[in-house]
Amino acid sequence: MTRSAPPSSARTRTGNFFEDFRLGARIVHPTPRTLTDGDCALYIALTGARNPVHCAAPVARAMGYRDRTVDDLLAFHVAFGKTVPDVSLNAVANLGYADLRFLAPCYPGDTIRAESEVIGLRENSNRRSGVVYVRSDAYNQRGEPVLTWARWVMVHKRDPESPAPATVVPSLPELVPAAALTVTAPNPAALVPAITGSTDCWDDYAPGERIDHPSGVTLEEADHMLATRLYQNTARVHFDALAMRQSSFGRRLVYGGHVISLCRALSYDGLENAYAIGAINGGSHTNPTFAGDTLYAITEVRDRWSLPGRTDVGALRLRLIGLKNLAPAELASPTAPDGKPHPNVVLDLDYTVFMPRKSRQ
Amino acid sequence: MTRSAPPSSARTRTGNFFEDFRLGARIVHPTPRTLTDGDCALYIALTGARNPVHCAAPVARAMGYRDRTVDDLLAFHVAFGKTVPDVSLNAVANLGYADLRFLAPCYPGDTIRAESEVIGLRENSNRRSGVVYVRSDAYNQRGEPVLTWARWVMVHKRDPESPAPATVVPSLPELVPAAALTVTAPNPAALVPAITGSTDCWDDYAPGERIDHPSGVTLEEADHMLATRLYQNTARVHFDALAMRQSSFGRRLVYGGHVISLCRALSYDGLENAYAIGAINGGSHTNPTFAGDTLYAITEVRDRWSLPGRTDVGALRLRLIGLKNLAPAELASPTAPDGKPHPNVVLDLDYTVFMPRKSRQ
Amino acid sequence: MTRSAPPSSARTRTGNFFEDFRLGARIVHPTPRTLTDGDCALYIALTGARNPVHCAAPVARAMGYRDRTVDDLLAFHVAFGKTVPDVSLNAVANLGYADLRFLAPCYPGDTIRAESEVIGLRENSNRRSGVVYVRSDAYNQRGEPVLTWARWVMVHKRDPESPAPATVVPSLPELVPAAALTVTAPNPAALVPAITGSTDCWDDYAPGERIDHPSGVTLEEADHMLATRLYQNTARVHFDALAMRQSSFGRRLVYGGHVISLCRALSYDGLENAYAIGAINGGSHTNPTFAGDTLYAITEVRDRWSLPGRTDVGALRLRLIGLKNLAPAELASPTAPDGKPHPNVVLDLDYTVFMPRKSRQ
Repeated sequence: MTRSAPPSSARTRTGNFFEDFRLGARIVHPTPRTLTDGDCALYIALTGARNPVHCAAPVARAMGYRDRTVDDLLAFHVAFGKTVPDVSLNAVANLGYADLRFLAPCYPGDTIRAESEVIGLRENSNRRSGVVYVRSDAYNQRGEPVLTWARWVMVHKRDPESPAPATVVPSLPELVPAAALTVTAPNPAALVPAITGSTDCWDDYAPGERIDHPSGVTLEEADHMLATRLYQNTARVHFDALAMRQSSFGRRLVYGGHVISLCRALSYDGLENAYAIGAINGGSHTNPTFAGDTLYAITEVRDRWSLPGRTDVGALRLRLIGLKNLAPAELASPTAPDGKPHPNVVLDLDYTVFMPRKSRQ
Repeated sequence: MTRSAPPSSARTRTGNFFEDFRLGARIVHPTPRTLTDGDCALYIALTGARNPVHCAAPVARAMGYRDRTVDDLLAFHVAFGKTVPDVSLNAVANLGYADLRFLAPCYPGDTIRAESEVIGLRENSNRRSGVVYVRSDAYNQRGEPVLTWARWVMVHKRDPESPAPATVVPSLPELVPAAALTVTAPNPAALVPAITGSTDCWDDYAPGERIDHPSGVTLEEADHMLATRLYQNTARVHFDALAMRQSSFGRRLVYGGHVISLCRALSYDGLENAYAIGAINGGSHTNPTFAGDTLYAITEVRDRWSLPGRTDVGALRLRLIGLKNLAPAELASPTAPDGKPHPNVVLDLDYTVFMPRKSRQ
Repeated sequence: MTRSAPPSSARTRTGNFFEDFRLGARIVHPTPRTLTDGDCALYIALTGARNPVHCAAPVARAMGYRDRTVDDLLAFHVAFGKTVPDVSLNAVANLGYADLRFLAPCYPGDTIRAESEVIGLRENSNRRSGVVYVRSDAYNQRGEPVLTWARWVMVHKRDPESPAPATVVPSLPELVPAAALTVTAPNPAALVPAITGSTDCWDDYAPGERIDHPSGVTLEEADHMLATRLYQNTARVHFDALAMRQSSFGRRLVYGGHVISLCRALSYDGLENAYAIGAINGGSHTNPTFAGDTLYAITEVRDRWSLPGRTDVGALRLRLIGLKNLAPAELASPTAPDGKPHPNVVLDLDYTVFMPRKSRQ
């Protein structure tokens, strides 16, 4: 006999359906997570990340951090993973995210928890699903906000007959402006070229230029599942090969966040001094990624911003393109002639990084 | 030339055979092991465990633990792995275990070592092997017992002509009674629903009910080997594909303990407040598990016990059924019509967990 | 458009070519790396290492270490990985290494950085490549040398027409003599047999004897890539299956250093008291290793040295043979009848370990 659980726990077990979301409702996501040196080591092993701010404690301390910091994306994936059981377990599709801001560094030993607020609802005309907009916030053990982001997902209805809520579509910024970025390092100038391997700094990157990052990495089922479990993301599309045989994909999907991490790590060669992510403005997972695919990365510099009151550090708005099974040099444009994303492009990410300025040297 | 080692080290290299075991002999198992944040992170990545007692230091401390604790099963696997070279390297079969009790929490930084005592011997009628019963104990660096269990294995004889020992079959309890359980958390009531994701507590589970846990996970060779190496379990059936081609299985076997860990992690959805394992009463690995198999879990509630002198926490005796390549809903019974275990059932575990009682809230 | 980077960063991105190396030049390799408990746990999971000096803090402390030490080879792989982008990214072949000395223990929390000096250059007669000899040194965060080694690699020329440098071939020692070894443990006698599982000590091993280690391990793509990323070694032959399809191997190569680690871990059974590596005298990766291969290990004892002023510890010079897809007992000699390495031999390593002497007991 299948357990008929009381309502409140049934929610945890089956996830929320469209009609379970109420505008303005605040969801406290369960299972806080302490991030440790163990998680940081695994993140390096899983992604190949080499940013010294996360790998080398003396470097981080010289920059004014208390200790080396947890990789921005590791902290994000863990915080994001917390929201999955409540927000997107019944998602038809993850439609987008916006206004992701990194507000404070996360250190080994910190404990992350997440909350979300429903900020928009729009039932689909077929009445079988709807779009849910949430604003999610992650906090450390002192209650300080470390991350915030908005995302919208298409979620199944449990019962197509249940009444539609009033349509509310929130206004979300196209990008996080320079004035809204939080520079966390007191002294980015300590990140000298001998440490990162590159003399290129903020001043050297010009809007419009494209960097074809030289390395590629082939994914395996074991490593994407290890990563996604580390992030405690329970979306079953990543783990259950038997169930996925029934899906249109026919097999397990790689968690899109892990694809971002791999592409960010690949982009180290050419962006060595991009020591922290300030914001993710938006992004799309334009095609699915599977085990066996080989990933490559291209960066386009979109913009170069000075930061209020800072002459030692600036921001670069970048476009990170992840492509599979095609060397960067062979990709003329991430958009196919028909206007759709190129079939080998799996990621199109708009994000902003911090980089020391020449004055530092 | 193969080294002809002195007797004492030859023992380490080839393992003990049936005639090497003497009733009452005490074996000090080599290579103590310090468990750290690194092991805990890997355990999460390998199993998907989400129990906040092991993942979130502030939660564990609020419950009265000194720090987050090492997952009960991680501590067990490491302790168990220590016994393999001496006890079961020449095992024909691991026949069973009983009376496994978790006596004290294990914290990151603790060092585990193990000893075993031979408590029973019975030569098989074919004289080519025999059954060895051992009681194993694991201790931390202060010499405090953290785990104890009995198990029995069928072990080859080196020489079929060597004389049979007197048959001694120990009496082992069918289960660990409530009075013999050690509640380690001073304040389980701190495990509030916002932390675990479920309001269900001890009072809400009824003997006889069945929980079909929703998630499944497909195993890979890389991840089961990583886990088994982490546990420093050297049984070669898990690692050597070339040698296993000669076996009846034709390939590497997944360590049964890792199957327990995966099923325990899968069972989090539906047993969110089962924050610690008090005992494992017994269990069988009813069918082998291989890479490529997809695991699912079912829990049956066997019994609900109050605990002497505690109104804040109770114990649930559970049956954890692990099945492969079959969704839980499709399994009517873990026993096939012929009385044998269902061919898709790989684990049938009888264990006892602690759960906060309603009074906590 | 591909970014045309300024010269200094172009170097980082495409690696040095033969004509970029100048005799006497000193290269400071980027991205220092803090090694933590997380890296140590991963190393155990990836290799199956069981040496208690690295696994058990109380044992290491009883031996006089401040804490358990980072596995010698883990420290080496990380230091070595740092040199790859500058030294061997354009290598045709890693020709050899010599005079690798372990100078100081590395502890969890230590940060490793590396520098190299060009000590020899010899252009090949075809003018398309040349051999570069470097001496590399790794330091901890206090600037203390922890490792030093020489290696030579054949590197492509960017432009075959560029002029040849004067030929300088450094004189490198065939082995590190006893007097040049650094014994790091003040009290190796604390490593008693109950801890390691063997009573065999330095006195018990005789030059000429051969030990066939009993275990084997099958490699997977996921685990060798995890290891090589953990070491932050970016050589693309290990990661990019698509690019490697064009190579003569047709697939990803396993990093030779990881093969050393696996064979060293396999050799624990039979060398339990070889608690630290003093030196690597030299070695060859005689055949490539691929995922799917099953590795085994054989040790030949080459020499037994007493150490100046020490009666408690001695050194053994060993030959570690790694073989694939062939049980040790089936290998009569690592050399084939035609004088070439046996086709199943992948590693032939000449190294020196420390082991307690009988007087300790």
